Amino acid sequence: MNPVEIIKHKRNNQKLSAEEIQYFVKGYLSGEVADYQMSAFLMAVYFNGMDNEETYILTDCMLHSGEVIDLKEISKPKIDKHSIGGVGDKTSLILAPLVACCDIAVPMISGRGLGHTGGTLDKLESIPGFKIDYDIEQYKNILSNIGLVMSGQTSNLAPADKLIYALRDVTATVDNESLITASIMSKKLAEGADGLVFDIKIGNGSNLPDISKCNSLKKKLLEVSAQFGKKAIAISTDMNEPLGMKIGNWLEVEECLEIMTGKIIPDLYKINNILAGAMIYLGGKADSVFEGEKIAQDLLASGKVYNKFLDMVKIQEGDVKYIEDWKNLKRSKYRYEVNAENSGYIYRMNAYDFGMASIELGCGRKKISDKIDYLAGIELYKKCGDKIEKGEAICCLYASEESMFEPANEYLRKGIIISEVKPPERILIKSISGN
Amino acid sequence: MNPVEIIKHKRNNQKLSAEEIQYFVKGYLSGEVADYQMSAFLMAVYFNGMDNEETYILTDCMLHSGEVIDLKEISKPKIDKHSIGGVGDKTSLILAPLVACCDIAVPMISGRGLGHTGGTLDKLESIPGFKIDYDIEQYKNILSNIGLVMSGQTSNLAPADKLIYALRDVTATVDNESLITASIMSKKLAEGADGLVFDIKIGNGSNLPDISKCNSLKKKLLEVSAQFGKKAIAISTDMNEPLGMKIGNWLEVEECLEIMTGKIIPDLYKINNILAGAMIYLGGKADSVFEGEKIAQDLLASGKVYNKFLDMVKIQEGDVKYIEDWKNLKRSKYRYEVNAENSGYIYRMNAYDFGMASIELGCGRKKISDKIDYLAGIELYKKCGDKIEKGEAICCLYASEESMFEPANEYLRKGIIISEVKPPERILIKSISGN
Repeated sequence: MNPVEIIKHKRNNQKLSAEEIQYFVKGYLSGEVADYQMSAFLMAVYFNGMDNEETYILTDCMLHSGEVIDLKEISKPKIDKHSIGGVGDKTSLILAPLVACCDIAVPMISGRGLGHTGGTLDKLESIPGFKIDYDIEQYKNILSNIGLVMSGQTSNLAPADKLIYALRDVTATVDNESLITASIMSKKLAEGADGLVFDIKIGNGSNLPDISKCNSLKKKLLEVSAQFGKKAIAISTDMNEPLGMKIGNWLEVEECLEIMTGKIIPDLYKINNILAGAMIYLGGKADSVFEGEKIAQDLLASGKVYNKFLDMVKIQEGDVKYIEDWKNLKRSKYRYEVNAENSGYIYRMNAYDFGMASIELGCGRKKISDKIDYLAGIELYKKCGDKIEKGEAICCLYASEESMFEPANEYLRKGIIISEVKPPERILIKSISGN
Repeated sequence: MNPVEIIKHKRNNQKLSAEEIQYFVKGYLSGEVADYQMSAFLMAVYFNGMDNEETYILTDCMLHSGEVIDLKEISKPKIDKHSIGGVGDKTSLILAPLVACCDIAVPMISGRGLGHTGGTLDKLESIPGFKIDYDIEQYKNILSNIGLVMSGQTSNLAPADKLIYALRDVTATVDNESLITASIMSKKLAEGADGLVFDIKIGNGSNLPDISKCNSLKKKLLEVSAQFGKKAIAISTDMNEPLGMKIGNWLEVEECLEIMTGKIIPDLYKINNILAGAMIYLGGKADSVFEGEKIAQDLLASGKVYNKFLDMVKIQEGDVKYIEDWKNLKRSKYRYEVNAENSGYIYRMNAYDFGMASIELGCGRKKISDKIDYLAGIELYKKCGDKIEKGEAICCLYASEESMFEPANEYLRKGIIISEVKPPERILIKSISGN
C-alpha cells in the first residue's frame, strides 16, 4: 500500500477500503505514514467526508489502537453521556451522580476545555485535591464502589485518537463530522459503556456552530453506535446563549451544587433532566425519556444526588469541606459589572462571545501551557427575554487581574444585544432521536 | 500570525492576504510552519484554489525565496518555452537551438521525468558527458557564448518551490492549477527570460489530463506572466497519442537529430515549429507566430539548427562524436515487436499507456533511486489513422531485460485500439492565446 495513493483516493472522493483505512491509521502509529501525509489526508476528509462504513472502520481502527476497558464484571447497565461542547455546559457534573442514584453505572471519561468552551476535567479540578488520573483497575474500582467515575483519558485508551486529535488541532481539520465521530466514539467505546446519550449543542456557542454539520454528526454518531451494538439517543439542545447563570470552573461547580440542593435554574434544569432522563431510559429504569426526566426531577429534590456527588468527591480525593462550604462564594479578587447601555429586552447573549470572554478572564487556555484561574468567571443576572433598564447590571465578571476585564468586555459588547422587541421564546430541546 | 488560522481561511474559501501567503511560505522555510501544516494548506488549496492575486503573490514569494538571475547584460531578447509535460515530447531539444539561430537567447532550465512523462534533463544526459549542473556565472557564460543554455535547477533558484514540490509529490497535491502555476513561474522567472511560450498538452498523455484544468492553468500562466511584466503565448497542443515516432531518452535525441537534418515527422514537425514560431515572434524576429513558424521550417531545412545543437553539446561537455554517429542506431540489448491482433485502422494509441510502457522498459524512474536505461524505448511504426494488417508490427520495444516487455506490453494492449472505422483527423494545434 502507498500512502500517496490512499490520500489521492480520498481527495478524488473515492470510497476507501477497510484495508486502506487500517493501513493509514496503523502506518501513522508506526511512522510509515508521515505527519504531513496524515494532515493532507485529514484535509481531504474534511472536504470529501467519509460515509458510514468508512467512519465505522476509522473508529474501529482508532478504538483498537489501544486498550478497551471491559466492564462485564459490573452487572449494572453502564450508560454515559457525551456533549459536543458548549458554554456554561455543566450537566455532566449533575447527571453523572443523578443517574448513578438509579442503579445505573456511569463510566465517564471527559476532556479539557477546547476553544471557547469549558471542559469537565477543568471544572472538577477546581475542587482542591480532586484526582482525575486513574489506571484502569482504579477506574473500575471507583465505578463498582459508588456507581460512577469521572476521569481523564488514560494514555493507553485510543492512542491513535490522541495523536490524530493533536494534529487536527494544528492543521484546521477539527470540524468534520466523520473525524469528530471517530474521535468521540473511539474514546466512548474504549471506556466500556453499553449505552450512550449525545448532547448535540446547536447554536453559536457550540463547538460545531454549523447546524447542518450538527445534524450530520448526530446521524453519524447514532449510526456508528448501532454498528458497534450500542444503544444511543441524541438530543439536540440550544446553545445560542450560555447554559445556566454561571460560566467558569468553580462557578459552574457551584451552580451544579445549587441545582443538586433543589434550586431550579430553568434552562440548565430542563436540559440536564432530559439528558439524565434519556440515560435512565437507556439503562432500563424508565419506560420513556420523559418518565426518566420525571425521575431526575424527583431525585434532585430529594437531596440524594448531592450526597452521591459528595461520595464521588470523597473517593476521588477531592476536598469535601470545600464543597460543603460552597455557599461562601469563592471568587477571583476583582469583580466588574457589565451594565446595560439602554433599556429594553435582552435580545441576544451570544454564547460564543461569553465563552471567549471567560477565556479572557482566565477560565480557559489560549496556549496549552496557560494556567487556569479556577475562581474566575461570569455570573449572569439576566437571560435572553428579560427586561432591563439602562444602567442596570447584566452580568458580573471575576478575574485575578483588572486588565482582563477590557478584552473580556469587548466580546460581551459584541455578544449582548438589547432591543425594544422581546425575542421569540427559546426552544431548549430541538429534537430527540434514537438509533 | 497563526498558521492554523491561515489554513482555516483557505479551507473556508476565504481570500488570503499577501501577508498571510508571505508568512506561510517564509515560515515554512524558517521552520515556523511545520510540514504537516504546509501539506494541510496545500490540500485546502487543492480544493478551494487560489485567485489570480493569490497565485501571483505565492509565485512572487517562491521566486524571491532564492536568487533571481539577472540577464540584463545579454542584450538579445531572451525567450524560453515550458511544456506541462507529455509523452514523446522532445521539442525543447529542437526549438532551443532553432530559436538561438534567430539572434534570440534561450535560457532554458528543465526538469527530470515525472510520472509517465519524460524529462528534458534525462534526455540530455543520454548524451555521454553532457553536463547539466552549472552555477549562475557559468550559466550566463554559456548563454552569451552560443545563445542558448539547457540546464537543471540550481539549488539557489526558487528553493521554496523545491521544498514545496517535494511535499506535494508525497501528499497528492500536485495537480492544482495555482500550485502548478506558482511552481512553473517561480522557476521560469528566476531563470531570467523576458518572454515565455507555454505548451499546454491536452489529452490522456498530459501531466494534467483534465481539460478544464488545462484551460484554467493556461489562463493562470498567461495572467501571472502579465503581472510580472513578461510577454507570453500559450499554445494548446494534442497529447492523446505520443508526439513523433520515438519514446525514450536517446531515442528521442535521435528523432530530434532526424528533424534537425531535414526529416519531416508530421506531428512533431508541426508542433515544434509553431512553438518555435511563437518564441521567434515574442523575440521580435517575426511579425506573427505563423511567420515565425515559416522561419523555423526554413532553418530546419538549412542545417543551421543541427550545427547550433552541436555547439551546445560541445560547450556543455557532451560527446560530439556520439552525436555525429547517430545514424548507427544505439539501442538496448533486447527488442520486441508488438503486432496487430486484427486488421483495420489504428484508432487509438493512448499516450498515457505508451508513457507508462516506456517507464516499464527503463526509460524513467518509479522510485527516485532508480537508474535510467538511456537506450531503452519505443519506436512507432504506425500512428493513429494508419491502416494495419493483422500480424503487422505496430511498434518495437527496446529494453535491457526481456522480462520488461510483458509489463510494458500490458499497457500497450490497453492503449492501442484497432477499429474498422478510420478515426477523425487529429487536431494538433487546439488554440493559441497571448497575454
